[in-house]
Amino acid sequence: MLNGERKISRPLRWAMVGGGRTGQVGYKHRTGALRDNTAFELVAGAFDIDFERGRDFGVNIGVLKDRLYPDYETMFAEEARREDGIEVVSIATPNATHFEICKAALEAGLHVICEKPLFFTTEEAQFVKELAEEKEKIVGVTYGFSGHQLLLQMRAMIEQGKIGDVRVVDLQYTHGFNAADEGDKSNSAQKWRVDPKVAGPSFVLGDLSTHTYYMSQLILPHMKVKKLLCDRQSFVGSRAPLEDNAHVIMHYDNGAVGTMWTSSINAGCMDAQRIRIVGSKASLEWWDSKPNELRYEIQGEPAQTLVRAMPYLDENCQADERLGALHAEGLSESWANIYLKFAMAVDAKERGDEETLRHLVYPDIDAGLEGVRWVENCVRSADNGAVWVDFE
Amino acid sequence: MLNGERKISRPLRWAMVGGGRTGQVGYKHRTGALRDNTAFELVAGAFDIDFERGRDFGVNIGVLKDRLYPDYETMFAEEARREDGIEVVSIATPNATHFEICKAALEAGLHVICEKPLFFTTEEAQFVKELAEEKEKIVGVTYGFSGHQLLLQMRAMIEQGKIGDVRVVDLQYTHGFNAADEGDKSNSAQKWRVDPKVAGPSFVLGDLSTHTYYMSQLILPHMKVKKLLCDRQSFVGSRAPLEDNAHVIMHYDNGAVGTMWTSSINAGCMDAQRIRIVGSKASLEWWDSKPNELRYEIQGEPAQTLVRAMPYLDENCQADERLGALHAEGLSESWANIYLKFAMAVDAKERGDEETLRHLVYPDIDAGLEGVRWVENCVRSADNGAVWVDFE
Amino acid sequence: MLNGERKISRPLRWAMVGGGRTGQVGYKHRTGALRDNTAFELVAGAFDIDFERGRDFGVNIGVLKDRLYPDYETMFAEEARREDGIEVVSIATPNATHFEICKAALEAGLHVICEKPLFFTTEEAQFVKELAEEKEKIVGVTYGFSGHQLLLQMRAMIEQGKIGDVRVVDLQYTHGFNAADEGDKSNSAQKWRVDPKVAGPSFVLGDLSTHTYYMSQLILPHMKVKKLLCDRQSFVGSRAPLEDNAHVIMHYDNGAVGTMWTSSINAGCMDAQRIRIVGSKASLEWWDSKPNELRYEIQGEPAQTLVRAMPYLDENCQADERLGALHAEGLSESWANIYLKFAMAVDAKERGDEETLRHLVYPDIDAGLEGVRWVENCVRSADNGAVWVDFE
Amino acid sequence: MLNGERKISRPLRWAMVGGGRTGQVGYKHRTGALRDNTAFELVAGAFDIDFERGRDFGVNIGVLKDRLYPDYETMFAEEARREDGIEVVSIATPNATHFEICKAALEAGLHVICEKPLFFTTEEAQFVKELAEEKEKIVGVTYGFSGHQLLLQMRAMIEQGKIGDVRVVDLQYTHGFNAADEGDKSNSAQKWRVDPKVAGPSFVLGDLSTHTYYMSQLILPHMKVKKLLCDRQSFVGSRAPLEDNAHVIMHYDNGAVGTMWTSSINAGCMDAQRIRIVGSKASLEWWDSKPNELRYEIQGEPAQTLVRAMPYLDENCQADERLGALHAEGLSESWANIYLKFAMAVDAKERGDEETLRHLVYPDIDAGLEGVRWVENCVRSADNGAVWVDFE
Repeated sequence: MLNGERKISRPLRWAMVGGGRTGQVGYKHRTGALRDNTAFELVAGAFDIDFERGRDFGVNIGVLKDRLYPDYETMFAEEARREDGIEVVSIATPNATHFEICKAALEAGLHVICEKPLFFTTEEAQFVKELAEEKEKIVGVTYGFSGHQLLLQMRAMIEQGKIGDVRVVDLQYTHGFNAADEGDKSNSAQKWRVDPKVAGPSFVLGDLSTHTYYMSQLILPHMKVKKLLCDRQSFVGSRAPLEDNAHVIMHYDNGAVGTMWTSSINAGCMDAQRIRIVGSKASLEWWDSKPNELRYEIQGEPAQTLVRAMPYLDENCQADERLGALHAEGLSESWANIYLKFAMAVDAKERGDEETLRHLVYPDIDAGLEGVRWVENCVRSADNGAVWVDFE
Repeated sequence: MLNGERKISRPLRWAMVGGGRTGQVGYKHRTGALRDNTAFELVAGAFDIDFERGRDFGVNIGVLKDRLYPDYETMFAEEARREDGIEVVSIATPNATHFEICKAALEAGLHVICEKPLFFTTEEAQFVKELAEEKEKIVGVTYGFSGHQLLLQMRAMIEQGKIGDVRVVDLQYTHGFNAADEGDKSNSAQKWRVDPKVAGPSFVLGDLSTHTYYMSQLILPHMKVKKLLCDRQSFVGSRAPLEDNAHVIMHYDNGAVGTMWTSSINAGCMDAQRIRIVGSKASLEWWDSKPNELRYEIQGEPAQTLVRAMPYLDENCQADERLGALHAEGLSESWANIYLKFAMAVDAKERGDEETLRHLVYPDIDAGLEGVRWVENCVRSADNGAVWVDFE
Repeated sequence: MLNGERKISRPLRWAMVGGGRTGQVGYKHRTGALRDNTAFELVAGAFDIDFERGRDFGVNIGVLKDRLYPDYETMFAEEARREDGIEVVSIATPNATHFEICKAALEAGLHVICEKPLFFTTEEAQFVKELAEEKEKIVGVTYGFSGHQLLLQMRAMIEQGKIGDVRVVDLQYTHGFNAADEGDKSNSAQKWRVDPKVAGPSFVLGDLSTHTYYMSQLILPHMKVKKLLCDRQSFVGSRAPLEDNAHVIMHYDNGAVGTMWTSSINAGCMDAQRIRIVGSKASLEWWDSKPNELRYEIQGEPAQTLVRAMPYLDENCQADERLGALHAEGLSESWANIYLKFAMAVDAKERGDEETLRHLVYPDIDAGLEGVRWVENCVRSADNGAVWVDFE
Repeated sequence: MLNGERKISRPLRWAMVGGGRTGQVGYKHRTGALRDNTAFELVAGAFDIDFERGRDFGVNIGVLKDRLYPDYETMFAEEARREDGIEVVSIATPNATHFEICKAALEAGLHVICEKPLFFTTEEAQFVKELAEEKEKIVGVTYGFSGHQLLLQMRAMIEQGKIGDVRVVDLQYTHGFNAADEGDKSNSAQKWRVDPKVAGPSFVLGDLSTHTYYMSQLILPHMKVKKLLCDRQSFVGSRAPLEDNAHVIMHYDNGAVGTMWTSSINAGCMDAQRIRIVGSKASLEWWDSKPNELRYEIQGEPAQTLVRAMPYLDENCQADERLGALHAEGLSESWANIYLKFAMAVDAKERGDEETLRHLVYPDIDAGLEGVRWVENCVRSADNGAVWVDFE
């Protein structure tokens, strides 16, 4: 179980290209990288194509002003001159720019962490792979869902033969947020995704299904796709030739078959990713909308629901645990929310800002006092024979 | 929507008493406080009753060695002498010590954030409340579940009359982890909880139900308990007089009735906290095991499932959002897990530790390349009329 | 497994008092009694306080006109004169009349099946019990939910020690159909239920919770309530003194505790009955809204979902099975619906009523033909290498 | 709402071919046909290939001995001679025999109800269709799941434009009961299904997917499949060439796409049939394992759960309702189970069989008395101020 203690001798000096105020993904990178301040420290950035906006943003998240740069070229050059220059860079820009930035970063002697889909062609990917080997650098890809521990539980159980031979791989990553064409032209996070020049040869296949496909590989490292068939549509016509819906059938080298449904026009669907692995004896099923739970269905026996953080899980799954049993994922967000309000309360108090304090909703001393009162009254009732007492 | 940009002018200098390596709660405090490094910075600590262990731990989470202290008295005294001394302290020690540490912290001029249940008696709570007012300091209480945004949605909808008049408040915080007496004497995080001298006058009423009771107050600020009846049991006899199960019936000042079931012997229960508020027109129901979802049930209409981060939610609920629609809570843990592995990969690469690299499972360049290949093959199949293609 | 073959030598000659066209409960009696035509045959009835309406109704459900009676007294007297007179009578009238009709039936030498709550007082119940013994007749009570097989599974598992010692009994029968006072005065099935003269001393306690209480006794035959506390309210004021909401806490003779929440003002609640039995090792939970499933939660192990009709169930549970594995309950309703349409199609065809045939939606020869076509096309595609084929 | 009152002037005289003691399907036919004894009456049968066994069975379900026949030819011939001869016959025999029996029945002047898949070829189906027209007879097909009312709700909502234009049809009928080859050779209900001579050109495509395909047609009467692609496998090799798993992609004439996954090797799957219809504005989803519920998901709004029997449903859906709101499907099975035990109790009492009475678990007079006692005690406690009372 993880508790924030360092896993490496000191935090790595880290920067980002992209990931500024106008999109959502940068915050996920920082939340991940800076979880414990023992893996990375954020020391520089070229967060935005608009330098002023990016610099303002960078200052607001605590980066020193003189290490905020107008573009990645400048950042790589300037940081290379510093003794305490960056060692690792994350790339969270539109797809069309991944290749050139990756290449530049490796050539600048940096380790790279890049958004998916990595590039447009396997040739580009192969080129970068070789460059990374030559430079002796790591290239990581942010398949951000792949860190859910129960995926490692699936991997372990399948490796241990708990479902028998794999027969059917049932994959899905669908949502309905693009059922209408709203935002296709106006929303900055969306418009480049349906422009082949910026997004590359696909929309949902690259944007969504690469995640789930990677997760299936993570779970099934022993299986390779041998052939496949893909049927894609652009239900919102203006998106053509980029698809907003696709179905794929796959044949694996071990005789298994698979399907992938990926879509951004699955109206109303909020359970985005489903992974079901059918074996000759049992199946495993996991949904990213309920990441705490894994279904294990042995044919002819009661279905089992495995829950994150429980002692019966595989050690590789447990090793990535941070919250502990009974604490649903999301609890860390809840704690962050209340601690932010604590900070705002302290700040307001220090500034004598009573107006803010009056409106801030958080568990304050009165809430604590009420909790004590609650216990006191309960105990008084119980100890007198479970009788009614006035709440005092 | 939150994105990590600062809400106050600079991070507060923060320390902890308790919360070291032997328990789980300290990590939750740090995860919450340090989420964005814009609200707090952790600069000192007295993390453990065993000074050596606490100091080793503190170094491992990045606190400077000379600001790690053997006890809170020393910490408060030493830090008071520094210009950059701590401003806020969190207390995550056994219940019996909360009062004296809180008092000392306030007297040392510190803001305080304290674990629940705050103290043993309302007299103590009242004393601390007055002391905090005199010292002009904030006292916060870590009802850690209360930051889930959908609780604010419930509050807003009830305030707006969406369920009519509140009639029944149905509360539950139960689990089964103490169904047997295992750990009661050996487990360091458990043994003091069943010792009246350290835990105070209750076990589950204080340890569990105070959370849910606070959340009910957060949701229903206009309602007060007028009288109550509590029936408690010690099903594991050695815990007497402290209860491991209790039922409470409440009468509110507006004529509503409520119930609370709190238990740590509810064998197998993994859905710990349920909050159902029944109104004259509709009900709202939320479970902490599925914090993304809120049920809104209007009598005579189809039940509605509201999902975190959606635009139809109240602005106060949306203001605390960090992940965005379609991203289930827990995703930040997933990102943290993969970023930790990126750091470990970089570190291993730098050290030339190929052995570690061989065993580390994370989305590397090959995973990125496979994703590109996946899209390429899918597009080739689709663009040739949805035909079978060999996976190349 | 049951398949309709007779369990007794010939069907019993059966009649009903009440249960006519204006309420819903009579149909449930007939559906149950006549499921296979091997247990009962319906030969007489006094279905309605309005004789004409009751006689019309009786003819419509296939009872001979001369065995339809204006009241129970006449029916008992007339039938007693026949050689093929009734042997058993079911009583489905408002509560206030149960006692006198039961008494008259037993005195007329009939076995009796009566709606719940049986009577108003235990004295009445004791009197009838003794009368039945004297007359050597059976008196059954239609706790209609108690025939769900998974209740027998719970009984068997608890008896076999699968959950350890029972500690907490958590019962609920709530709905929200009386959240408003609509229907209290106008709806014939509702208005007598809130009138103490007709309903007796309670509304939801008698109307709802007696079901769940009986089911708890069925599951836990070894446990008796020793003392209890009940708190009841009339949230719709005009119902006072009859309650529309109540909470009960129970102490059992073996040290277990129990709670019952019964309500008809739980707005929007469609999952009416919950039964959770918490033992020292595990818990069992069943909801009447999902009668196919039983949760078995062993502390520290993955939760199991047991499903109706599976071979791993106890023999007493399996003995009552009628549908078989994979066939969810409700399937018999579906078959009844399509068979009724087959009959209506045949009848229309015989009458030359093409208009009716045109509008009747049911699986006809074209539907059958399309199914054959579907298989043909699928097989043709598959056998040619999973290629696209025009649907012919 | 249906209540058993006749929909046609008198019950039709009905017989079965097949459907005897050795399989499960016959009981479903009888349960459906005889639900109210106002649509059909069962007067004859050739239930079994083993005449003695079939005759014994027929007597046990109440058919007169002289109308039980060794084979369908004899039955059709003999019944044709009677004035009260059969009018309708149901065919529940292995697939290979459907065609000849259908043909014979129509030629004997009978209406026909036949199991699916109807025949082996569309030519056969076309022939029978024309024969039925010539003979002016009805041919119905027992797609037994298609009577679930919420399917009519889906049909109505789609017709009313509630989901916009249909884009994706997502169909599934899978289970895992044939994950192993157990029973393929020994189980009488299974062995013919994997024998091409008896089953025809397919196993699961015909046995399972024709159901779901019909239901999709019922829901989407305006859409036709234009082309399709099917990929099938025999994961249990001995079943080849008959498939135990298949995936189909469909293109509809209106531009929609569809998929069907059908399988009997989906190990552990108990949620057999899923139907999801994705429109341009919203989606509808229904599972046969939860036939009471329909999900209606409008993009950007809270998902709605529609529940069977509620007043907000379409009139065509409500017209087929039998149980009423709050009464989950399966309740009629429960009533049937308790009424059967009432009959067995009466029978035992009449025979003086006290041994049977001692072991029969059913709601008897004591259960009724206990219910009265329960209410009495609750009321006494409540009316004294919600105080503890001894259970008397």
